[in-house]
Amino acid sequence: MRAHVSDPDRTQDKTAPPHARSNAAGPAHRQSLGRVLQSLIGPIDARRSHAIRDARRVVERCRALLSERGEVSGARLANDVTQAYQALETAAREAFFDDLAAEFSLDPADVGAAADAFRADPSEVSLVRLQNAVEPPRRELFRRINMAKGGTAALVDMRRRLLETLAAHPERAGVDADLQKLFRSWFNRGFLSLQRIEWRTSALVLERLIQYEAVHQIQGWRDLRRRLEADRRCYAFFHPALPDEPLIFIEVALTRRLPARVQPLLDPDSPVTDPESAECALFYSITNCQEGLRGVSFGNFLIKQVVEELGREFPHLRTFATLSPVPGFAAWLMNRNDTITLDRRSATLQSIVEALGLSQRHQPPIDSARQKQLTRLCARYLLHDKRGQHPSDAVARFHLANGACLERLNWMGDTSPSGLALSLGFTVNYVYRLPEVERNHEAYAKTGAVTASREIQRLGRVDLRTDAARPGQPPSSA
Amino acid sequence: MRAHVSDPDRTQDKTAPPHARSNAAGPAHRQSLGRVLQSLIGPIDARRSHAIRDARRVVERCRALLSERGEVSGARLANDVTQAYQALETAAREAFFDDLAAEFSLDPADVGAAADAFRADPSEVSLVRLQNAVEPPRRELFRRINMAKGGTAALVDMRRRLLETLAAHPERAGVDADLQKLFRSWFNRGFLSLQRIEWRTSALVLERLIQYEAVHQIQGWRDLRRRLEADRRCYAFFHPALPDEPLIFIEVALTRRLPARVQPLLDPDSPVTDPESAECALFYSITNCQEGLRGVSFGNFLIKQVVEELGREFPHLRTFATLSPVPGFAAWLMNRNDTITLDRRSATLQSIVEALGLSQRHQPPIDSARQKQLTRLCARYLLHDKRGQHPSDAVARFHLANGACLERLNWMGDTSPSGLALSLGFTVNYVYRLPEVERNHEAYAKTGAVTASREIQRLGRVDLRTDAARPGQPPSSA
Amino acid sequence: MRAHVSDPDRTQDKTAPPHARSNAAGPAHRQSLGRVLQSLIGPIDARRSHAIRDARRVVERCRALLSERGEVSGARLANDVTQAYQALETAAREAFFDDLAAEFSLDPADVGAAADAFRADPSEVSLVRLQNAVEPPRRELFRRINMAKGGTAALVDMRRRLLETLAAHPERAGVDADLQKLFRSWFNRGFLSLQRIEWRTSALVLERLIQYEAVHQIQGWRDLRRRLEADRRCYAFFHPALPDEPLIFIEVALTRRLPARVQPLLDPDSPVTDPESAECALFYSITNCQEGLRGVSFGNFLIKQVVEELGREFPHLRTFATLSPVPGFAAWLMNRNDTITLDRRSATLQSIVEALGLSQRHQPPIDSARQKQLTRLCARYLLHDKRGQHPSDAVARFHLANGACLERLNWMGDTSPSGLALSLGFTVNYVYRLPEVERNHEAYAKTGAVTASREIQRLGRVDLRTDAARPGQPPSSA
Amino acid sequence: MRAHVSDPDRTQDKTAPPHARSNAAGPAHRQSLGRVLQSLIGPIDARRSHAIRDARRVVERCRALLSERGEVSGARLANDVTQAYQALETAAREAFFDDLAAEFSLDPADVGAAADAFRADPSEVSLVRLQNAVEPPRRELFRRINMAKGGTAALVDMRRRLLETLAAHPERAGVDADLQKLFRSWFNRGFLSLQRIEWRTSALVLERLIQYEAVHQIQGWRDLRRRLEADRRCYAFFHPALPDEPLIFIEVALTRRLPARVQPLLDPDSPVTDPESAECALFYSITNCQEGLRGVSFGNFLIKQVVEELGREFPHLRTFATLSPVPGFAAWLMNRNDTITLDRRSATLQSIVEALGLSQRHQPPIDSARQKQLTRLCARYLLHDKRGQHPSDAVARFHLANGACLERLNWMGDTSPSGLALSLGFTVNYVYRLPEVERNHEAYAKTGAVTASREIQRLGRVDLRTDAARPGQPPSSA
Repeated sequence: MRAHVSDPDRTQDKTAPPHARSNAAGPAHRQSLGRVLQSLIGPIDARRSHAIRDARRVVERCRALLSERGEVSGARLANDVTQAYQALETAAREAFFDDLAAEFSLDPADVGAAADAFRADPSEVSLVRLQNAVEPPRRELFRRINMAKGGTAALVDMRRRLLETLAAHPERAGVDADLQKLFRSWFNRGFLSLQRIEWRTSALVLERLIQYEAVHQIQGWRDLRRRLEADRRCYAFFHPALPDEPLIFIEVALTRRLPARVQPLLDPDSPVTDPESAECALFYSITNCQEGLRGVSFGNFLIKQVVEELGREFPHLRTFATLSPVPGFAAWLMNRNDTITLDRRSATLQSIVEALGLSQRHQPPIDSARQKQLTRLCARYLLHDKRGQHPSDAVARFHLANGACLERLNWMGDTSPSGLALSLGFTVNYVYRLPEVERNHEAYAKTGAVTASREIQRLGRVDLRTDAARPGQPPSSA
Repeated sequence: MRAHVSDPDRTQDKTAPPHARSNAAGPAHRQSLGRVLQSLIGPIDARRSHAIRDARRVVERCRALLSERGEVSGARLANDVTQAYQALETAAREAFFDDLAAEFSLDPADVGAAADAFRADPSEVSLVRLQNAVEPPRRELFRRINMAKGGTAALVDMRRRLLETLAAHPERAGVDADLQKLFRSWFNRGFLSLQRIEWRTSALVLERLIQYEAVHQIQGWRDLRRRLEADRRCYAFFHPALPDEPLIFIEVALTRRLPARVQPLLDPDSPVTDPESAECALFYSITNCQEGLRGVSFGNFLIKQVVEELGREFPHLRTFATLSPVPGFAAWLMNRNDTITLDRRSATLQSIVEALGLSQRHQPPIDSARQKQLTRLCARYLLHDKRGQHPSDAVARFHLANGACLERLNWMGDTSPSGLALSLGFTVNYVYRLPEVERNHEAYAKTGAVTASREIQRLGRVDLRTDAARPGQPPSSA
Repeated sequence: MRAHVSDPDRTQDKTAPPHARSNAAGPAHRQSLGRVLQSLIGPIDARRSHAIRDARRVVERCRALLSERGEVSGARLANDVTQAYQALETAAREAFFDDLAAEFSLDPADVGAAADAFRADPSEVSLVRLQNAVEPPRRELFRRINMAKGGTAALVDMRRRLLETLAAHPERAGVDADLQKLFRSWFNRGFLSLQRIEWRTSALVLERLIQYEAVHQIQGWRDLRRRLEADRRCYAFFHPALPDEPLIFIEVALTRRLPARVQPLLDPDSPVTDPESAECALFYSITNCQEGLRGVSFGNFLIKQVVEELGREFPHLRTFATLSPVPGFAAWLMNRNDTITLDRRSATLQSIVEALGLSQRHQPPIDSARQKQLTRLCARYLLHDKRGQHPSDAVARFHLANGACLERLNWMGDTSPSGLALSLGFTVNYVYRLPEVERNHEAYAKTGAVTASREIQRLGRVDLRTDAARPGQPPSSA
Repeated sequence: MRAHVSDPDRTQDKTAPPHARSNAAGPAHRQSLGRVLQSLIGPIDARRSHAIRDARRVVERCRALLSERGEVSGARLANDVTQAYQALETAAREAFFDDLAAEFSLDPADVGAAADAFRADPSEVSLVRLQNAVEPPRRELFRRINMAKGGTAALVDMRRRLLETLAAHPERAGVDADLQKLFRSWFNRGFLSLQRIEWRTSALVLERLIQYEAVHQIQGWRDLRRRLEADRRCYAFFHPALPDEPLIFIEVALTRRLPARVQPLLDPDSPVTDPESAECALFYSITNCQEGLRGVSFGNFLIKQVVEELGREFPHLRTFATLSPVPGFAAWLMNRNDTITLDRRSATLQSIVEALGLSQRHQPPIDSARQKQLTRLCARYLLHDKRGQHPSDAVARFHLANGACLERLNWMGDTSPSGLALSLGFTVNYVYRLPEVERNHEAYAKTGAVTASREIQRLGRVDLRTDAARPGQPPSSA
């Protein structure tokens, strides 16, 4: 189970938005569209001039919306803005983003003055003035755009497109930060509704699942239908302003035992079993749908509420677990660039990875000793490879931060091309035990402690070198 | 038509919250609950100690909700907080409010440091740090409380109760400001749905109308039913998180001509007329329902959208107007403390007002000359009596700011006790002409210009002195 | 608990419709509207002629609807008929009913011929012809009227009005029989939906409850609200073609013990108790709403389904019982016209009944001995007074036929004027024990056996003579 | 456009059910299951005995449901019956159908006696008795089965399976007749709701369209999605007891001009046009979904209501027409077994048909003269080939009976394999003009008159032989 964007910030609220770090509040920003136009008058081709004219039209409407007129004709002006924005072609949208970043920003001088005033007199009055001074006019602009019919959807879409340009345009980070700030307020958990997705659900929504599912792609309607049968469950969060758009959804299989392998679960021809006899609820996929809501976390809440829902509906369930990839394992292994020597023969990791990738899925040409060795390496990776104090693997970070326990490693759990390429075929079961979740989370948050089963702890503890150097090591100890 | 709370800030977004002006950010705030307890240990009675203990329990849960644990068990902890809060009795709630004001506030030193840092280096990084520094932890606390089942309702109720205490506790203004800030974001027009209220509507919602209607009280279910007949319309805004709670509602009568008098409209026995033959949509009452949402304005949007809805349903409608009181007129007149001399006889305004109040409704003992005189005074009051650059009358301010035109004054338009007492029986028709609304609003907002019909302009223009023959009257006093 | 019409046929499907027994298929029926007109041309006044003209207009539309044109323009013609019918005034409706009875009836000659043909050749072909021959064209007419918008409601209303005239017009019994036949098919239990009625329900539906409740009148909205609080339940059957019209509804109180008295239950100021602590579900009122559906039984299904619903929601419930009147008791006692002698003093029943009626409710001037005597008489009445092989008391017949047990008699259980007048203040608890219901019903249906508690059996067994020491009392008179 | 079963009785109410004609009421029917068992005891294999035992179990439950117990425990017993029935395997179901036909039938002796009694005394009492006598107990059984959860669906399914066996088992016609009789009553137009089918509709319902569409098969979800775009409409009738099951649906294309060809309409890649600019609503497919409701006609109502709906939504629409096949044309032509001589060369029709079938679709090897000749023959077929007084072509019968006009013949309008094989590639536009529909229908119903455009009348009038014999005939006249 993995959020389909590997960016960890996606699913962690605590981190300050990484886009907001460049120094973008300087006077360069103040370049208005007009000046841009002037400087370009010479060489620009007709197309660019057209784009700028279109962008300028949207900006003018934005100004009207922020003006006095916006107070009384807000909804109409907001409709004007969203329609004009949605009609923009790529170049014009780029120009519009430039202007959003430049024109509706803060005036650092104002902020400085308000800060000085507060320094001189730290009263509530001057505090309120400072609070107002540090909020860019853009936020109020976005709030007013939201009044349009379909305004929320337009803003979420705007941020999605903006994010695509952010790497090339770090000066737009402030725009992104403002949108994210608003979305975190608007998409508060208290405003979301959990809905079960069934075959009875609107095709409009089901189609979205097919489009968005990024962990284990849905191969058309027949595949989807199997995922909605009696022994499967699917839940999504919806926001009232986006009634046909799932924000995040989770797919669950109700099984007798804790599954280790992905492919049998996804087989559209697998027999449907009686959910009443299930003892395990397996979360085999969780997908964030709205790229424009990056940084607003839903997954944590979703898993916990679904655990509660399922517990009510099926009191016999004992285990709530995921079947997740280890998406950073192969890359980590490759980068180690060392060798594993087994049975007195030495092989580069590179060659092992390639062997896996080329192998037939059901008969991997990896001998049992190497399999054990790789399993130990995977445990080490998950337990000990860190970015800061937390695991470097994005999926591990997500579930461990949610309070899950790293329960079991499964060799050849995912033999799909991407499963082999990224996770060397490994899957992990993270187990959610509600009474322990809070404790695990706190330990993880404070000290980076990873809760793992004894077996995984044992696997991760073995010293690779000792292992390789000691010929007498009995194979059963792995 | 009048917002049922006369406070103008209720319906005007622009004004900075008036509660946020006291200097409440000082160290006195830092008094923790513990110290309060210590200082009180001697004399306090058991009751007070009990209340403080209850409040402390809520505060502890608030701290947990804001802590690491809150990240992973947010919904459960939020439920704990709301339930504990809702169980508080009056004294305990007071103690809780004190603590909210003290404990979850800003640290002015932090703000100062962040301001200094920004001064030294006005980069985006230091701006973001400053933005974070000026937001009190309380806001995040409230955001997390909102995750509880019924969390939004609990917070709106919390602010309602808080507002009741604000006059006596100006130090709580910051708490109020934080809630208001959140509510303005959450109750954005884009998240509201306009719903028609009919006799088919849930009794739960209809009962609220009976409870909330403050302009022209609803005298039970029979009265309500008349107000929902074929020649009446009622619309309300709802927020998805408060599905049974109208935020604001408006009552409309569909009539042939523009009515002048309130009482015939409200008669439950009046015959139901054919709405298809109506040419006038009369907004005779608009009521803000949620005291806890004071300062979040809905009325402006509501009127405009209802004008559009009605225009679509009844293309024959020509006039969209209100039938409104002049709630400040009587008080203004009394305060002038001068006399009106007519027919060479002079009478104090006081005596006229009393005569009106005592008179039988259908035969007021006011002669026609005095009636004209009072009408002129009323026009003068509405046109020329200002608070700042805008009219002092709250209802006039609301409709004129929305772009309406002051169309007609109606003598004895409202003969109810409160109509006589506050408005001397006058009613006003404010007319909404959509094509002019924006222009009117802008003139009003910029220069305070009041759009009025020629007749009212004429009435307001007549010099009282000529009339009253009192040379000493300074013009500026009118 | 009592069906609000005492006619037992209302709630018992088995009885053949009593209205269909007169010989109304004779040639007199063939009198067409035309002939009626001619014979009346002389003396009739303008009003009657007007009515006949209106009725004829409806009849003409009915003919069109039954004709070839009806096949292709059915819905339009059906709308025409219902609108024309609904516009009829009383006299015109009477004329229309006359014509319905005369014109769209069977031709006995056709029936006879088809019967002869079947006699001669009892094949399926001749059977089908006979089946068609015995169905009056009226049924097809009604089926086509049902295609109109609101057609079902119009037909139910038509029968309601028709039933009012049936006593005076026995020749219309065939029309009634046809409508009843259709309604029994259309209002099949399988097409009804059980809905819980709550305070959240549409005021349109709630208003109907106030109008229809005939057992214990609802005293306005406040009374209704109390009946929908947490410790009360209300359920109704609805048909999809009459979405705002409950067909039948039942009111339930959730209580600790089995209540004996009506008045405390109905007190709008009684405290609301926790339904989770209830052990008894008391059905204190059941009301058939649609007079036009008389003879189509719903009550039996409703009680059983509600017992199941409540059992699921509140697993702690142990007793499902009614609190019912004994509506025929007082009349039965008066008709006995004998005396009860107690304590060597003799009193006419008449005087006792009067004493009860006049007494203050809480201190009835009936001594304890007389109270016992009356209780025994009431038991005798319920157990032994029969109409055919079943009890003569309509409410007893209803619940015993449903399989309930006559559990307890309560002295002064209903001290309302009608409770005293009809039931001498007695109430009965009939208990529904699902595992026994079928057995009780079968015994009752086959032999008329009344299932009663031992206590009631004992009370009914005591010989009045022993008690009263009057040797002349014939046993058969009880 | 064509009902997907060519049986004309499917869509015409007037015809008596053809299945009810065999003499099946004789004593042979009285063979009870017991006797069947006895006669089979010798040779039957275990499987058959098993089936009979299963069937007997259902029959026993049916008897219980019809008994006294059924009165009080109806819903439960009805559930028992439907569950037991649904578990039957093919052989057991056959045995059950036998028993339904035998055991719950009429007793001809009873009918005879009631007929005699009515003959002797034609009173209402004896009429009612006769009416009861001619109704088999099976109908009451089915009415009670309908009380089960899912009872209506079970009965509709039961008839579907029964119909499959009717050809081999004419003695079951009475069972079919009883079900049809009930369904005609229950599925009265007044109880159906018209619903628009959109991409937003439940996938459960959309899947049904894919399964049921029989005129122009839907090639998966992508094809379906195209048929629900902005320039397409789809409507269906639903019954409240079968909420996920469309009864009949119609597919409409909104186009500029009246289309002649099927294939471009069905192209999933065709561009979506603006529905506001459409002047023609083309009904290109109408499908009865429930085989079990055969003989209950919906199509007529559906077309008319959809014409009204579309007229309201798109006031610019001028033409409401179908694009229909001529499904009987090829067979008719082949049966004529004569030759068409053109250009002095003679060709058998057989060879022409074969040429068409083999031809490449876009360049048919049919010369223009033969094309004209075939068009004339098609017109003759539609206008003059009769079964009784009505056209022999089933689709023509359906639309002409509905009052449509035979407007235009289109050469190579449907080049699909089945279009070529059945209709020789012809399509027909039947046009619905609401003001003329009633008149057309009546003429058709009374005299069999076919309303056709002048062009088609002219085409049908030309004598084939004359034509072929007269060399001077100008080609342009065709």
